[in-house]
Amino acid sequence: MSLPTPFAQAFKGQRVLITGGLGFIGSNLARTLVKLGAQVTILDSLIPEYGGNRRNVHGLEKKLSINLSDVRDRHSLPEFLRGQHFLFNLAGQTSHMDSMSDPETDLEINCRAQLTLLEACRKHNPKLRVVFASTRQIYGRPDYLPVDEKHPLRPVDVNGINKLAGEEYHLLYSQVHGVPSTVLRLTNTIGPRMRVKDARQTFVGIWIRQILGGQPIEVWGGAQRRDFTYVDDAVEAFLLAATHPDAVGGVFNLGGVGQVSLRELAETLVEVAGEGSYRVRSFPADRRKIDIGDYYSDCRLIESTLGWKPRTTIKQALTKTLAYYRKELPNYL
Amino acid sequence: MSLPTPFAQAFKGQRVLITGGLGFIGSNLARTLVKLGAQVTILDSLIPEYGGNRRNVHGLEKKLSINLSDVRDRHSLPEFLRGQHFLFNLAGQTSHMDSMSDPETDLEINCRAQLTLLEACRKHNPKLRVVFASTRQIYGRPDYLPVDEKHPLRPVDVNGINKLAGEEYHLLYSQVHGVPSTVLRLTNTIGPRMRVKDARQTFVGIWIRQILGGQPIEVWGGAQRRDFTYVDDAVEAFLLAATHPDAVGGVFNLGGVGQVSLRELAETLVEVAGEGSYRVRSFPADRRKIDIGDYYSDCRLIESTLGWKPRTTIKQALTKTLAYYRKELPNYL
Repeated sequence: MSLPTPFAQAFKGQRVLITGGLGFIGSNLARTLVKLGAQVTILDSLIPEYGGNRRNVHGLEKKLSINLSDVRDRHSLPEFLRGQHFLFNLAGQTSHMDSMSDPETDLEINCRAQLTLLEACRKHNPKLRVVFASTRQIYGRPDYLPVDEKHPLRPVDVNGINKLAGEEYHLLYSQVHGVPSTVLRLTNTIGPRMRVKDARQTFVGIWIRQILGGQPIEVWGGAQRRDFTYVDDAVEAFLLAATHPDAVGGVFNLGGVGQVSLRELAETLVEVAGEGSYRVRSFPADRRKIDIGDYYSDCRLIESTLGWKPRTTIKQALTKTLAYYRKELPNYL
Repeated sequence: MSLPTPFAQAFKGQRVLITGGLGFIGSNLARTLVKLGAQVTILDSLIPEYGGNRRNVHGLEKKLSINLSDVRDRHSLPEFLRGQHFLFNLAGQTSHMDSMSDPETDLEINCRAQLTLLEACRKHNPKLRVVFASTRQIYGRPDYLPVDEKHPLRPVDVNGINKLAGEEYHLLYSQVHGVPSTVLRLTNTIGPRMRVKDARQTFVGIWIRQILGGQPIEVWGGAQRRDFTYVDDAVEAFLLAATHPDAVGGVFNLGGVGQVSLRELAETLVEVAGEGSYRVRSFPADRRKIDIGDYYSDCRLIESTLGWKPRTTIKQALTKTLAYYRKELPNYL
């Protein structure tokens, strides 16, 4: 990615902690931060069902510090936090279905551990600059499109409720305790280093695996319209949010260049791949109950406040992602 | 209280569980339910800092069942839930200040235990009719007055965030898992059996104690305007919410007859008591940070949907409350 001026120097020599740093977005962020001269420490639990993968930092093992640790385990938190300048807080349980079948695990990670982490910041490093990865899921089924930050918050699954609480804790600790935090509400993010073994992180992951494996892509529903942020654009938003003074205490949507139906997305993927096919299947009942229908975000607030906007089209994002997995797929299965 | 027709017969012979049933509202609810012929089981942990007090069910000990138990303790929940027809879910940590100094305890009670309880309902008694006591605190500082249910939810303390999550879990389990639940957002509730030992439950409690003890009432700030629901009116709302078919899956504000500044409230209390005085003090800094300013609610939705409205004026409420504590004060210190 090209690195815009605002934060090109801001991370040089700075100590940066990334929870979930072996995951999809966290590892892309870590790679960029290493390039920018930061001293990066990654916390990741590498739970097999989640997004962490050591391959995500391949080649950088000596340029950053990896610590196997789960955000639920509180005892080492003070030591991790002391002396850090930035915390990118990306560790989370992201599966909507899992949050319904095992709601308490989702609560422990997305809710309780976040509060513990913020308490530790307050006590041990209250000036730590925090950026929290939240999700469009907290809006629930949109009343209107595109969805801006003023849209009512009506999560439709346990994951959405707990992420909402996690987000609110960050804003509260920023406002009341002065721990300077920013919340980014991510939409679908795609790109190299996402989980492609299955659909647990994003359905686009399993699509990539299917098309590279010579299987038809399975599209559930197909009419739902969504937007997609390419991971390099998302990384840029995190870096801007961490360094821009107007970001403190703020909540910002990320978004994509345009939006497409899932059927159109599948068509584009087949076109970009130059091979493969897709088939449309009806939605499983348990998913339909918590599906939010169409969603795409209005991200004008972050553009006007921080100067960020998505730059990578869906076609470009799919092209780059496919190129990565054509080489790397065996390391992600 | 006079018992309106809609639920006069609905509880006869029905099994009713009340969490926090030795507390202020819970015990008033229990007393009415016993009169209506229900088989009432109370769960309460009697934590000294919270609202529970055995005196609250004085005289009824043989007409209902009291079980010392904390909602955080999950193992006995299935047994409590089996065979019940109604659950009035009032157990909670209610102190805003405590939620800031000990946020994880607040989370355990108001967030985690609620999810565990609902999971137990889903597994062991999915048709149980649930009414959850939520709070105006989840609105935060009002954008407009009076506050209706469409007002943005922006809690200003950990208690508000966790109560919001607790509320959302109830609505989700109602919608997705079919556990029929209703959420009532309570404003300040006052009346016999409230905690008067200190200001931990409501500042009106300590005012009652001060005036009966011959001390001046201490008014913090004084200009804030608030509404007050008399506890009998609140009990009626819970009973209606539990029995009205249009209440399932709904969220309703409670409110009071009119609204007053805290200074006016103190004047009224002194007038009703025929004795005493008040003095206005400036707000302590730690409270100011999480104070919400003026609040009073628009409760037209519950009036139009369920036919409930508050009937007891603030003056009547203070008169009845004072009369109770003139006799009962020693049992509440």
